Amino acid sequence: MSHYLNYAIQLAEMVEGQTGVNPPVGAVVVSQGRVVGLGAHLRQGDKHAEVQALDMAGAEAQGGTIYISLEPCTHYGSTPPCVNKIIDFGISKVVYAIKDTTLSSRGDQILKEHGIEVEFRYQEAAMRLYEDFFFAKRNAMPEVTVKVSCSLDGKQATDVGQSQWITNKAVKQDVFQLRHTHDAVITGNSTVHADDPSYTTRIEEGKHPVRVLLSKSGEINFDLSMFQDATAPIWIYTENPDLSANQEHIDIIYLKECTIERILGNLYSKGIGRVLVEAGPQVTSQFLHSTLTKELILYYAPIIIGGSGQHQFYQTDEVLELSQVPNFEIVRTDMLEQNIKVQLRKK
Amino acid sequence: MSHYLNYAIQLAEMVEGQTGVNPPVGAVVVSQGRVVGLGAHLRQGDKHAEVQALDMAGAEAQGGTIYISLEPCTHYGSTPPCVNKIIDFGISKVVYAIKDTTLSSRGDQILKEHGIEVEFRYQEAAMRLYEDFFFAKRNAMPEVTVKVSCSLDGKQATDVGQSQWITNKAVKQDVFQLRHTHDAVITGNSTVHADDPSYTTRIEEGKHPVRVLLSKSGEINFDLSMFQDATAPIWIYTENPDLSANQEHIDIIYLKECTIERILGNLYSKGIGRVLVEAGPQVTSQFLHSTLTKELILYYAPIIIGGSGQHQFYQTDEVLELSQVPNFEIVRTDMLEQNIKVQLRKK
Repeated sequence: MSHYLNYAIQLAEMVEGQTGVNPPVGAVVVSQGRVVGLGAHLRQGDKHAEVQALDMAGAEAQGGTIYISLEPCTHYGSTPPCVNKIIDFGISKVVYAIKDTTLSSRGDQILKEHGIEVEFRYQEAAMRLYEDFFFAKRNAMPEVTVKVSCSLDGKQATDVGQSQWITNKAVKQDVFQLRHTHDAVITGNSTVHADDPSYTTRIEEGKHPVRVLLSKSGEINFDLSMFQDATAPIWIYTENPDLSANQEHIDIIYLKECTIERILGNLYSKGIGRVLVEAGPQVTSQFLHSTLTKELILYYAPIIIGGSGQHQFYQTDEVLELSQVPNFEIVRTDMLEQNIKVQLRKK
Repeated sequence: MSHYLNYAIQLAEMVEGQTGVNPPVGAVVVSQGRVVGLGAHLRQGDKHAEVQALDMAGAEAQGGTIYISLEPCTHYGSTPPCVNKIIDFGISKVVYAIKDTTLSSRGDQILKEHGIEVEFRYQEAAMRLYEDFFFAKRNAMPEVTVKVSCSLDGKQATDVGQSQWITNKAVKQDVFQLRHTHDAVITGNSTVHADDPSYTTRIEEGKHPVRVLLSKSGEINFDLSMFQDATAPIWIYTENPDLSANQEHIDIIYLKECTIERILGNLYSKGIGRVLVEAGPQVTSQFLHSTLTKELILYYAPIIIGGSGQHQFYQTDEVLELSQVPNFEIVRTDMLEQNIKVQLRKK
């Protein structure tokens, strides 16, 4: 029975997508058979989950156990190390679900030297929260999720660009939730010009992602409604040094080479920990081919489109060797009304 | 989408069974699209969930929304009214899942007079937490759950009293969890003498229930191992004015008439909000027949016992009219390894 550890993981899930380049973490302090403190890491730079939970517990933490979704930190970042706080509050035992492979020093040793029992108890549900975070932190790159809405035969639109058929209400709601849990949405210039989408989150008290637009040429029509809408910042990556915008919510970021690696590296340096790619075939295909993309979410509408295939969501210059084709494993599938959602991970 | 309200309900579930005669409540403060405070009511007499969440949020609560599993209180109990705290922290909106029918005054009006938007948004999952609480509070009686382990033909033991066949490991674990989330376990004297059970919670950091023993006659063998075990208090209800015990963890409570109503009323006055009945056919049958019992949990082992029927779990003096038979609705069924768990509610 790991119900308290599961509570810590549930708390981490409640703040997923709001901690920037920091991991979402939850903590529960238990003493004499009851919860005496609950905590979660609410925002990059804020108190860690352990500190929130210990502060709620106060003197009741003395002699108790703290359950944490992730190994407690040992370093001075924007906040002091959590191991110190755990020692100061007189905790007797620390149970955590996932080892933090990005820490430079091990907290276990420090805690044990202070007479605190430490137990690492691996939980699959927590690993789902952290495996992409570890990969992203090692590479100093955001976690990348590619989202595609398509027909059963893999097309994002008809030959004449009609794509209204994908917008079933349940899928729409699910996509709003995805945007809410990502710091930024990446799209391409041609998609914005074709669809004039908003990329906002229309869920209750949703957090809008930064809207990132890729446009090497910088040939942008600033009259489109997205540019008039200041709901969330727009960051435009371009190779055009002359591009400029005179609206406060639009930033132009000039890169000599707008490769996926450089754009993602730049986004990470600005605190963007999780990006969602919602774009047309060109940008989508580049991200799917990149080793930096770890997650793919497909929404299938129950239609087959056929046609010439120009809106096929994965496009390559030539027919690839099967050994070069991106391989995925299916994590789960769901019915969303009459659409199918498939979540996949890059192998 | 009520994901924040669902988080509040999840937090309430995390503290279910540790709040005595108070309801388990969870609260989430959200501001600018992110969670800024989490709270739960940790113990009877402690800070309410709203206060915990607002304290975590601090200044970030200003202009935010608080989501609460239950309508906020307006009265001075062991803590000041939550509506005052909500007003003081500058919250703009209150969303709650269940109306508290036991409150003497409505908080909505007070909050609205202070310019706070209030939304009642009924959630079925939260009602599960509170309907028995409301019933119990109105009656000043604890919530009563009867647990029965039996064969497919409804027997708790063979004619010679063998009952080892019910103790599959998954069921055992589930029963430990039940004990953990109840303040007291009620049993009868004959069961204790036949089985010498411990009634403790052998889950990690489990909270042991008070062990309540019903014995009208007071003919008790204090040599049994349960009486030697001081893990949790033992309260003995008896009609025998001469009964006494010389161990610190054993209390004798004399009642002139040991009816279910009087025993439950007395338990409630001592702060017991939830009781679990784990007894033999005699005590079990009385509770099942009582209108105060609202929940029944059956664990079926995959055997049929037959025999003379003396250990049938529901026994009455005469054959009842069908109109007098307790009626239940099935809430859910689960497989626990090769046993079946059925949760029912009295109609």
